[in-house]
Amino acid sequence: MLNFEILATEGHARRGRLALNHGVVQTPIFMPVGTYGTVKGVTPRSLEEMNAQIILGNTFHLWMRPGLDVIQSFGGLHRFERWDRPILTDSGGFQVWSLGEMRKISEEGVKFASPVNGDKLFLTPEVSMQVQTLLDSDIVMQFDECTPYETKGHLTTEAEAKFSMELSLRWAKRCQAEFTRLQNRNALFGIVQGGMFEHLREASLAALVDMDFPGYAVGGVSVGEPKEDMLRIMAHTPHRLPAHKPRYLMGVGTPEDLVEGVGQGVDMFDCVMPTRNARNGHLFTRFGDLKIRNARHKTDHRPLDESCSCYTCKGHTAADGTVTGGFSRAYLHHLERCGEMLAPMLATIHNLHYYLHLMQEIRDALEAGRFAAFAAQFRQDRARGV
Amino acid sequence: MLNFEILATEGHARRGRLALNHGVVQTPIFMPVGTYGTVKGVTPRSLEEMNAQIILGNTFHLWMRPGLDVIQSFGGLHRFERWDRPILTDSGGFQVWSLGEMRKISEEGVKFASPVNGDKLFLTPEVSMQVQTLLDSDIVMQFDECTPYETKGHLTTEAEAKFSMELSLRWAKRCQAEFTRLQNRNALFGIVQGGMFEHLREASLAALVDMDFPGYAVGGVSVGEPKEDMLRIMAHTPHRLPAHKPRYLMGVGTPEDLVEGVGQGVDMFDCVMPTRNARNGHLFTRFGDLKIRNARHKTDHRPLDESCSCYTCKGHTAADGTVTGGFSRAYLHHLERCGEMLAPMLATIHNLHYYLHLMQEIRDALEAGRFAAFAAQFRQDRARGV
Repeated sequence: MLNFEILATEGHARRGRLALNHGVVQTPIFMPVGTYGTVKGVTPRSLEEMNAQIILGNTFHLWMRPGLDVIQSFGGLHRFERWDRPILTDSGGFQVWSLGEMRKISEEGVKFASPVNGDKLFLTPEVSMQVQTLLDSDIVMQFDECTPYETKGHLTTEAEAKFSMELSLRWAKRCQAEFTRLQNRNALFGIVQGGMFEHLREASLAALVDMDFPGYAVGGVSVGEPKEDMLRIMAHTPHRLPAHKPRYLMGVGTPEDLVEGVGQGVDMFDCVMPTRNARNGHLFTRFGDLKIRNARHKTDHRPLDESCSCYTCKGHTAADGTVTGGFSRAYLHHLERCGEMLAPMLATIHNLHYYLHLMQEIRDALEAGRFAAFAAQFRQDRARGV
Repeated sequence: MLNFEILATEGHARRGRLALNHGVVQTPIFMPVGTYGTVKGVTPRSLEEMNAQIILGNTFHLWMRPGLDVIQSFGGLHRFERWDRPILTDSGGFQVWSLGEMRKISEEGVKFASPVNGDKLFLTPEVSMQVQTLLDSDIVMQFDECTPYETKGHLTTEAEAKFSMELSLRWAKRCQAEFTRLQNRNALFGIVQGGMFEHLREASLAALVDMDFPGYAVGGVSVGEPKEDMLRIMAHTPHRLPAHKPRYLMGVGTPEDLVEGVGQGVDMFDCVMPTRNARNGHLFTRFGDLKIRNARHKTDHRPLDESCSCYTCKGHTAADGTVTGGFSRAYLHHLERCGEMLAPMLATIHNLHYYLHLMQEIRDALEAGRFAAFAAQFRQDRARGV
């Protein structure tokens, strides 16, 4: 089940409401990445408290560990990981592609050896649909070939990008057939490929639109290309997708990318940046980014971001009035230097809260018809320095 | 300030109420260890929710990192680490003792090189009091020499234990004088030493009682001695301490040790076991311990402990009725095998909750005059197997 309503628009930007089997998602939205059935470093409770509406799971990784038998015994990923709001799963395509020389791609699918136990495995569009059906994710992604930007210094040629894109189209058809055969009650998204070539993107898009998917993603970005190429594709493709269906830009990006992407008509984003950077002490704030290991934070009593309402910055008030949390940069710097686990825990809470709150601000601005003004203020604030 | 009331007794065991400058502690109590200004792997909010009443800080470690200037700028440890309930700090004696050949002990104090930056430092009873006064901990521990059980295979002789114990007594006097001179408003505890020799323990105890400390600790246990020696000292010393003052058994122990210790008249315990073991996947439950990495948990849908009310086992119900948490052994096993940070996070919540809840059960049993029956049931449950 998928039901998408547009509540407001401003230029290409849209404020929407996406109803899925496990609940409603207000768009534009950022989706935290939960590779192995956990968004790294946070509890589901923290995620709910920071109002994460939908999270990702990685089909390939979950297939390897804990394995399908375990997840099947729980009746799907939701009950296994104890998350009852919507989940989107990728197809496994990106991960098998990342295996490099350990995999072999053919028309039929991808042969590879399990990085966990060496088992010979064969991932096909049909298998991807079967696995994602077992996971019972609310949004299922088609199995595609993620066209690389370069391979060992060789830039992907137009012919190669075309061949790859057309393979993904044939796989899209097989995914759709298998998804239907499995009577999967969730929603299957098609993925636009075509590399850095606009006309290939348009061909991919047109063919996918003919297949009438309930939602569409733009894939093959954030794969190592220069920023300007990413921005070029982000400006080209999303707004050409059907206006009445949700649009998902895969693997993007920085806070600036999210604001830019919304302006180009994107409704959904995912990226490991807030969680991964948190674990490296790289923190996002309204007034720019900071590295908490930097010596200048050693005696700084201020929170990371005075305007932030997360547990790390502002703390939490219990029902009895007790306030906990609300930590100084000096304390976070100390934790990071000591290698204390609380450092990545608090940084992850802050970064995810920052991303999710940014999307809330974007939704508010779109509802008020002042997204352009918001985006200008956002860029000015971020450039101020922290 | 320290005010201690005995509310109920049963044999040597006591149910008490300990008022300190930052709040009241119900005894018997277990105190989670917060070495570097953080109880490893949990937020202060989690600690408050599991009703931790008092936590430890390590004088030596905090002196090294972040350094006294930083903590002084916050007006003490409480505001630096954002914990507004009581804190107990050790004296630094145990840590300099652990430096082994990097330190030199004399009558005056201990010379050592900072393990962080190599600075030559001199820790004396006076310096320990000065540092703990700056930390503003509610309970300050005297600087002592922690008499070793053995040194490179050489068992500490009676003469050595006597010499060491007497040095600690002289240091106790110097601590008391400096604590008074500093007009520290918190409470200074004396520490009984004497190694594994009962008559030395008695001599140490008598001399310390003459000095009239507001509370007493039993030190020099959990230093590598055989379990029977620890139990022998635990049965010997605590109940000989003044009945109207709190008694703290340092560095102990397993759940069984805690129940045994309460029966021997101990009011306060600390140990890294619940937090450290959690990070190694060793979990405590009412029905015995388990190693979550064990393959038998792979498909087990049960929580760690059906009777446990922690977030990991039972979950949390938000004000709006949303339930999160309440994870299966299969999920925890999966997280551990994948090296996910959520594994030690959830294990730490569970283990600390188990220890704190055990102490709550002990207090309830003492109030009801059924501690002996509780202890018998406890041992039977723990032996059942999980």
